[in-house]
Amino acid sequence: MKYSRNFYEIRANDEIFQKIVEEKSSVGYYRLPYEDITHIESFAKTVTQKDIVVLGIGGSSLGTYAIHNFVKHKENDKKLHFLESTDPLDVAYRLKKIDLDDAFFILISKSGHTIETISNLKYILSLVKITNKNCAVISELDSALSAYANSQDIKIFEIPKDVGGRFSVFSPVGLLPLAIMGLNIEQLLNGCKIVSESFFEKGEYYESIIKKARFMVENKNRFNINVIFSYSSLLEGFNKWYIQLWGESLGKLNINGTKQALTPIGLLGPVDQHSFLQLIMEGKRDKTVTFIKVEDFENDLTIPDITIDALEDMDYLNNIKFKDLINMQADATIQSIEDVKDIPCDVITIERVDEFNIGKLMFAYQLLTSVIGAFIQINTYDQPGVESGKLILKKRLQH
Amino acid sequence: MKYSRNFYEIRANDEIFQKIVEEKSSVGYYRLPYEDITHIESFAKTVTQKDIVVLGIGGSSLGTYAIHNFVKHKENDKKLHFLESTDPLDVAYRLKKIDLDDAFFILISKSGHTIETISNLKYILSLVKITNKNCAVISELDSALSAYANSQDIKIFEIPKDVGGRFSVFSPVGLLPLAIMGLNIEQLLNGCKIVSESFFEKGEYYESIIKKARFMVENKNRFNINVIFSYSSLLEGFNKWYIQLWGESLGKLNINGTKQALTPIGLLGPVDQHSFLQLIMEGKRDKTVTFIKVEDFENDLTIPDITIDALEDMDYLNNIKFKDLINMQADATIQSIEDVKDIPCDVITIERVDEFNIGKLMFAYQLLTSVIGAFIQINTYDQPGVESGKLILKKRLQH
Repeated sequence: MKYSRNFYEIRANDEIFQKIVEEKSSVGYYRLPYEDITHIESFAKTVTQKDIVVLGIGGSSLGTYAIHNFVKHKENDKKLHFLESTDPLDVAYRLKKIDLDDAFFILISKSGHTIETISNLKYILSLVKITNKNCAVISELDSALSAYANSQDIKIFEIPKDVGGRFSVFSPVGLLPLAIMGLNIEQLLNGCKIVSESFFEKGEYYESIIKKARFMVENKNRFNINVIFSYSSLLEGFNKWYIQLWGESLGKLNINGTKQALTPIGLLGPVDQHSFLQLIMEGKRDKTVTFIKVEDFENDLTIPDITIDALEDMDYLNNIKFKDLINMQADATIQSIEDVKDIPCDVITIERVDEFNIGKLMFAYQLLTSVIGAFIQINTYDQPGVESGKLILKKRLQH
Repeated sequence: MKYSRNFYEIRANDEIFQKIVEEKSSVGYYRLPYEDITHIESFAKTVTQKDIVVLGIGGSSLGTYAIHNFVKHKENDKKLHFLESTDPLDVAYRLKKIDLDDAFFILISKSGHTIETISNLKYILSLVKITNKNCAVISELDSALSAYANSQDIKIFEIPKDVGGRFSVFSPVGLLPLAIMGLNIEQLLNGCKIVSESFFEKGEYYESIIKKARFMVENKNRFNINVIFSYSSLLEGFNKWYIQLWGESLGKLNINGTKQALTPIGLLGPVDQHSFLQLIMEGKRDKTVTFIKVEDFENDLTIPDITIDALEDMDYLNNIKFKDLINMQADATIQSIEDVKDIPCDVITIERVDEFNIGKLMFAYQLLTSVIGAFIQINTYDQPGVESGKLILKKRLQH
């Protein structure tokens, strides 16, 4: 047997770090926090419509959804809508909520040829006139969608060629709709920068990311499921974004043709204490669990000092702030998992519910994904496995 | 070594079937489709408020959410809300959308002592007067919550002792809020009955359920992840309900103390073609995949015959109905998975988007869960693993 120098091996942490540093010249997302965003902010200010409609799917909508979902209590009085599915009842239901005459459409497709997005666009075109007054396009500059935008004098924001869809949230893909919704995209990028600098200068984030990645890779066949258990409903969108980022980036054949085993799951506390937690506690030990907590929700909603007839024994809840209750619930669940000893578990704490902190969290998860990809020797940034389905569909549609 | 007659073994299909038949005397959900529902329907008609607020978590809300999510296009002009989390920003955000003076509250807790539900109830009590005019309670008859209801002359609907939360959707837990929303709960139960009769008379549903359960159990260590890939956004709630049902029922130690390995994941097509599909196609072969398709959405929304400048090559989409497009997308994905040969995969087809068909689907999944539980020799109906976290929390709260 010929010796293959690519045969699977865990490389040294520093070798992996060097590989990530080298990636910076060919992988675009690393530089996004440092790009000039003034043209995005100034364009956003000119949008006067009330209903903001994102037409995009997958990487073109999930990141925006995740951030908006987290900080939507800070948005202006506009309303954000997403049109992504081809489910007719879903499309009809979503459109009912949009005032088409007071709507601004953001068409997002990196390739410009996304079937779901173009189908929805065609349908929208039959309902309302699309002009440079109520539309912007986000795409690669040489795509057919950009050519369409040029033909209509519609403003184009670029998705750089070297930024993949699921790594594009800090490009105009996420920044433009979020800025239009009145959210602070500068603070969002500041959060990314803190993480980026700490990682690349081998600070705290380097230590935590490389350590976690290494653990997950070394144990990927034993713990093939990676659960994120977020103790805030506001992280529902983040969970979905994480699932795409993790699944599509890491679900690959590596350079030796070995299928990789990391599978993401997103849970929300306390709701999923009443659902998936039983499986974590007593099911097979095939899961790692990462808890995400919010240190301070900056909201003083309090359980009032009210005694309910026959429920006097629940008075211990009185005068407790909801923000303290949910964190006590998180801590109790964490404790119960730590007590069983054989479930790998870590805790991420977000300081506050703002743009800066969600920027930090999401950029750190992008870095973690890249580092794991480097460890398992895959191409983190492509998605060859979804092409066959697309080809089958296209062939059938064109008949 | 002493021979243990409980040592793990796959039992004969017919032995399992007999076990399920015997369960009918102690497990209540099997009889729910046959209960009298006229008192629920007539009470529902008396509710005049516009905002219907379900206070409940886990099994007290997920089933209702799943069915409502599927057939919400058929609802009356009321609006359904759920209050379940203790996230303060989430509670505040949801309450903003409710007109408390024109709201009807449905308090649901089997035990009557659910922390999240009582916390939210106390908060609601500080905002609005709760009386028998704007409230109903669904609980065990001897719970403290029922005692509270009695003290206020509030109508109580019973959750039978032998019906667990996650198997309670066809009890008043699901039926009352759905009936108030104008949905046809009789048709819902008719769907259940069809499946129940076919299963217990060893018809088509017996064959398909026992076969699928057996396959999953025999291969549970190789394929420890069970994906449902639903090709309709309307099944998002069903996916969540399935995750609770499967995870909490099957994530157990069996009678030999062996931790079981089945882990549920819910995906939505076509959206998750742009996310998780890559992982299914090229990740480790640790997943079974069940596709769910809707045969006829009964909606003729059509991609119009419009040519977009520079996107003329997408004209093959013109004149295609969305309902046909989404099913072609499903078929293409199914084909691409079948083509790789080593991913176990089956397809469930729902005929129409109505109460009857979601009743069929959900009752069949309850039966499938029971049958798998019988095969792997666990108690499908308890959840001992979540108790330790609850005790830790209660101890800390009472200090």
